[in-house]
Amino acid sequence: MSGDAKAGRPGRTREMILAAAMEMFAESGFHGTSLRDIAGRSGLTHPGVLYHFPTKEALLMAVLERRDEVTGEDYPTEGTTAREVLRSLVGTARLNAGRRGLVELFATLSAEATSADHPAHEFFTQRYESLRDQVAGAFTALAEDGALRPGVEPALAAIQVIAMMDGLQVQWLLDDRIDMGRALAVHLDQQVVTPLEA
Amino acid sequence: MSGDAKAGRPGRTREMILAAAMEMFAESGFHGTSLRDIAGRSGLTHPGVLYHFPTKEALLMAVLERRDEVTGEDYPTEGTTAREVLRSLVGTARLNAGRRGLVELFATLSAEATSADHPAHEFFTQRYESLRDQVAGAFTALAEDGALRPGVEPALAAIQVIAMMDGLQVQWLLDDRIDMGRALAVHLDQQVVTPLEA
Repeated sequence: MSGDAKAGRPGRTREMILAAAMEMFAESGFHGTSLRDIAGRSGLTHPGVLYHFPTKEALLMAVLERRDEVTGEDYPTEGTTAREVLRSLVGTARLNAGRRGLVELFATLSAEATSADHPAHEFFTQRYESLRDQVAGAFTALAEDGALRPGVEPALAAIQVIAMMDGLQVQWLLDDRIDMGRALAVHLDQQVVTPLEA
Repeated sequence: MSGDAKAGRPGRTREMILAAAMEMFAESGFHGTSLRDIAGRSGLTHPGVLYHFPTKEALLMAVLERRDEVTGEDYPTEGTTAREVLRSLVGTARLNAGRRGLVELFATLSAEATSADHPAHEFFTQRYESLRDQVAGAFTALAEDGALRPGVEPALAAIQVIAMMDGLQVQWLLDDRIDMGRALAVHLDQQVVTPLEA
């Protein structure tokens, strides 16, 4: 109530809390961050934060939804071709090189959330399953067109390219000379008969 | 003093603290774990832990050294061939499927340590540089023997395979049907003219 009433702009206050939470979850993880820390960084009182997000779990889910809103536009919607799906992975890797905070958030939370009792465990489990399905579907369509190189298995190729995307993020966060987009594009071109950009 | 004097076995007490710290850093990260939490899990008093590890940073470094002792034996020493270096990556991935705790520890800490002020930031930066150098050296030796497929660039191939190893760990931690060893072996065989196991 307090934070809100003072600011007089509930939407803006909510945004300030979300921005502070994204930064702090990225740096210190969910377990390493308290609602009091987030209140401090967003210039609000603890009750001011609680008015918008009654629990740290609620704030985490709002942060993950916000991340999806930002990155969701990278991904192709229904009706795009298999080659466009693969190209969109390279596009995301290139865009990620310009949004360090989001990449750090995702890397930290996805690793932490591998513990079964983490509040985002189900979120990340579903996220990977659905991404693997989408990418495996694209590889399968290419296989049916004879567009994959010999020996490339669609389901495995999906696991591999998603793994490479994630691992590249950690290396890039530690050393920004790593070119995530190029590493991924070269890998994908090894899976297909005709280069993706051609 | 206290914990030690009571247990009467300083080596064993130290081991208990290290085991508890590895579990808790893996679950909750460095920032999400306190020395008091670790004391609680290892059945010691807070001063008992402080006697062995005066700071949480000192305990973190001891945990990372211990992990290296366990996994260090996976890696080939000087004098092994380039193909053996690549095969050892697959071997490590297979061994990792039997040591979930260590994999979770590495995934959580490496993501968290991408922040420049994390106490393990330098450790992981060096770790990746040295691993990339070693693997790139193996790919370069194969390139000189004409053993790489056309278009494979040694330095990039090293970045790619290390990224895939890391990303496979996150997917496997979330879904243990993922076969990390096979995914890596198939990827590496796409880089070389003659399959690695042949």
